[in-house]
Amino acid sequence: MAKFKGFSFGVFFVGSIALNIFFLTNNLCAGHVNKQQLSWSQRAAAEAEAVASVSCSGHGITYLDGLFLDEKPVCECNSCYGGPTCSHFLPDCVADADSGDPLFLEPFWMQHAESSAVLVAGWHRMSYVFADQSYMSQVLQNHILKVHSIARNAITKGKYLVFGGGSTQLLSAAVFALSLNSSSLARVVAASPYYPVYKTQTDFFETAHFEFQGDALLMKRTSNSTGNAIEFVTSPNNPDGLLRKAVLQGSSVNAIYDHAYYWPHFTAIPAPADEDVMIFTISKLTGHAGSRFGWALVKDEDVYLNMLKYMQLAELGVSRDTQLRALQLLKVVLEGDGREIFHFAYEKMRDRWEKISQIVSLSNRYTIQDIPPQYCNFFEKVRGPSPAYVWLKCEREEDTNCNAVLRGANIIGRLGSLFNASDRYVRLSLLKRDDDFNLLLYRLKELVSKEG
Amino acid sequence: MAKFKGFSFGVFFVGSIALNIFFLTNNLCAGHVNKQQLSWSQRAAAEAEAVASVSCSGHGITYLDGLFLDEKPVCECNSCYGGPTCSHFLPDCVADADSGDPLFLEPFWMQHAESSAVLVAGWHRMSYVFADQSYMSQVLQNHILKVHSIARNAITKGKYLVFGGGSTQLLSAAVFALSLNSSSLARVVAASPYYPVYKTQTDFFETAHFEFQGDALLMKRTSNSTGNAIEFVTSPNNPDGLLRKAVLQGSSVNAIYDHAYYWPHFTAIPAPADEDVMIFTISKLTGHAGSRFGWALVKDEDVYLNMLKYMQLAELGVSRDTQLRALQLLKVVLEGDGREIFHFAYEKMRDRWEKISQIVSLSNRYTIQDIPPQYCNFFEKVRGPSPAYVWLKCEREEDTNCNAVLRGANIIGRLGSLFNASDRYVRLSLLKRDDDFNLLLYRLKELVSKEG
Repeated sequence: MAKFKGFSFGVFFVGSIALNIFFLTNNLCAGHVNKQQLSWSQRAAAEAEAVASVSCSGHGITYLDGLFLDEKPVCECNSCYGGPTCSHFLPDCVADADSGDPLFLEPFWMQHAESSAVLVAGWHRMSYVFADQSYMSQVLQNHILKVHSIARNAITKGKYLVFGGGSTQLLSAAVFALSLNSSSLARVVAASPYYPVYKTQTDFFETAHFEFQGDALLMKRTSNSTGNAIEFVTSPNNPDGLLRKAVLQGSSVNAIYDHAYYWPHFTAIPAPADEDVMIFTISKLTGHAGSRFGWALVKDEDVYLNMLKYMQLAELGVSRDTQLRALQLLKVVLEGDGREIFHFAYEKMRDRWEKISQIVSLSNRYTIQDIPPQYCNFFEKVRGPSPAYVWLKCEREEDTNCNAVLRGANIIGRLGSLFNASDRYVRLSLLKRDDDFNLLLYRLKELVSKEG
Repeated sequence: MAKFKGFSFGVFFVGSIALNIFFLTNNLCAGHVNKQQLSWSQRAAAEAEAVASVSCSGHGITYLDGLFLDEKPVCECNSCYGGPTCSHFLPDCVADADSGDPLFLEPFWMQHAESSAVLVAGWHRMSYVFADQSYMSQVLQNHILKVHSIARNAITKGKYLVFGGGSTQLLSAAVFALSLNSSSLARVVAASPYYPVYKTQTDFFETAHFEFQGDALLMKRTSNSTGNAIEFVTSPNNPDGLLRKAVLQGSSVNAIYDHAYYWPHFTAIPAPADEDVMIFTISKLTGHAGSRFGWALVKDEDVYLNMLKYMQLAELGVSRDTQLRALQLLKVVLEGDGREIFHFAYEKMRDRWEKISQIVSLSNRYTIQDIPPQYCNFFEKVRGPSPAYVWLKCEREEDTNCNAVLRGANIIGRLGSLFNASDRYVRLSLLKRDDDFNLLLYRLKELVSKEG
């Protein structure tokens, strides 16, 4: 009996010690993770993690501000997927390659979950103005300048910085700013094929000071003097990805350089851009198109002040919530040697281009743009193409509407005539998610395989 | 020896049991607080709490995106305070009552730290569009409609909703939208005294379709027919806080109702507003002027579509970061019976008005606007004034520039002529922080006490 008692006691004792060790280890680990016990931020952080933890089968995503069903967030499925967890592929679904929605970068941010999150307090930046009475975060400005110095894609020294709601808002602000200085009507042009918004936006906002007049190449050919002209120069160009310079020259010509795609993701960087008005957007740098954040580097002080005036009258500056988000994203971009996102993006885009090229090379009916290899200041080597878009041409005489041809193959692109080019051309976006790209590839393979 | 061994063993065993009880209790409590162990969101939450924990003596604030010194956030001091922890009052500092910066609501959000925080994941809403291909969060729209139903300040049924970058952007969008429908030039007017931006913004963006023409009262008196007219109606009015209706009538007249201040904070709500175009802003509801978020309730479908077109061409919609923030803030507004913020704001504004009134009532030289008590649908009783601004008048014959008179007393206001009124008037903001208001009060007391 005594032996049994002694044995039981020993078992309990060993068990108790084992439990001690378990708790000690657990608390030490927990202590290591929770260096700081959270208080008021706990709820928001937990809610964000709970929403993100819902599985959408790798083909969808949940958001804090999405729909909820029975208190659970509803998966927003990627194109061509459906069902409550986005696990059903919809086989006859169209491959939609119309939009330049830069979701190819989404996995990068999921890989950087910890560093890219930002907690916004209820009292964050309620005021109309920053401490310096401006609408622009000084800290964010500094980060933008650093990113340019690492990408080596723009000279920022001696330039003023203006924030806007995406490059979209800054394109308009620049047209206003440049046209206000001129004594006569400023004629706004762009060299075909050009981004449709230059025309639709300029037409919509047309004032007594400026008017959209179409193709810059046509103006160059038909006019002796251009008078006051404002030329949109997109470099690399949307839709064809080719680097460009202004077509028009002269003292009464001002160029607005849309450098949305002038990052190592999409093009060789032969030299840092050094123009008088250069516009960038976070949409094509980090992929956060929904944030509506862009910036302009401006040389002339009067143009800069006019752009500030535009931003004041249009909106009283860019949202402080957006500026905080942009700052957090750029902090991640700048981590380490500040080159990771460029490598990630370039590899992805290069791979997509190569796959498309390979398929089209087997075709007798379709061609894509040729982008020659070029020396890149960022990668410090000669590099091949990795453009944002395919600029596909239907070569067969009867295929006058290339978009309709592709539509017959269950592919949606953006019609060439929208870019002031022939309808033999279609722009196909390479910027979307893997699910979108893989389906596009599949449909193109199908299309080419059915030739003759 | 055996007894000693037995005793030591017993001590260790009891100790071990005690330790286990300790850990169990601790973990149960911790488990109660930290229901969910955080992972990727921990860093962001901890950083936000660390920044917010820095003391600025109650006269300043730190922000995540503010300046840092030696890795510590720098206090951004309230007006008239300085020093590293904002503890030094600067006695000769001017009382700046110029701006309508709605910081009086900051304490409300500090009191609601837990519920008002929102953690934004790195991959949050990267796309240009929501799942329904629009630029506007459906969930946020639903919350806005709920807020209106509680405040009982607007009929939303049968109205379309448009988001914009503050009411600022929507004012412009509405002018464009209404003028596009008209066959002749739309003359844009507002009844004096009116908010200066109506003129400055409309002048800046003037197209072939609309032109700012000044005082609506003047137009009414001098014209037989108004032709196509667009009237800005601010109700309650900025600067004088009086409820208003459109001055112009007729089938070719369209009114844009700027209801920025039509909340129980600032005015009695005699009835829910039910106009064809009504504009609201989160700046004056929650105080988040920096977020740049507003909405319009629009009756006519064509006007609505035109405003959507404006928002697309101007900016591709409002930032998704801003929309997420706005949603979180409105969730807090709607908590409980959804009335708390209105009580908080009304009490604060009413108290400030009473204090100012009391001082001015002792003066022979200055008068302020009279706002009669009125039945309020929200408070369901007759209530007195609590306007956003004092509309002060210098009554002495020689005081033709009232702002200069106040400047001599170390007070800055906004000049009456900016509102198309006489310079005998000055607008003084009652919307800023307690520090600002207390200094304004003090200076006014000084000024009045020095009268003959």
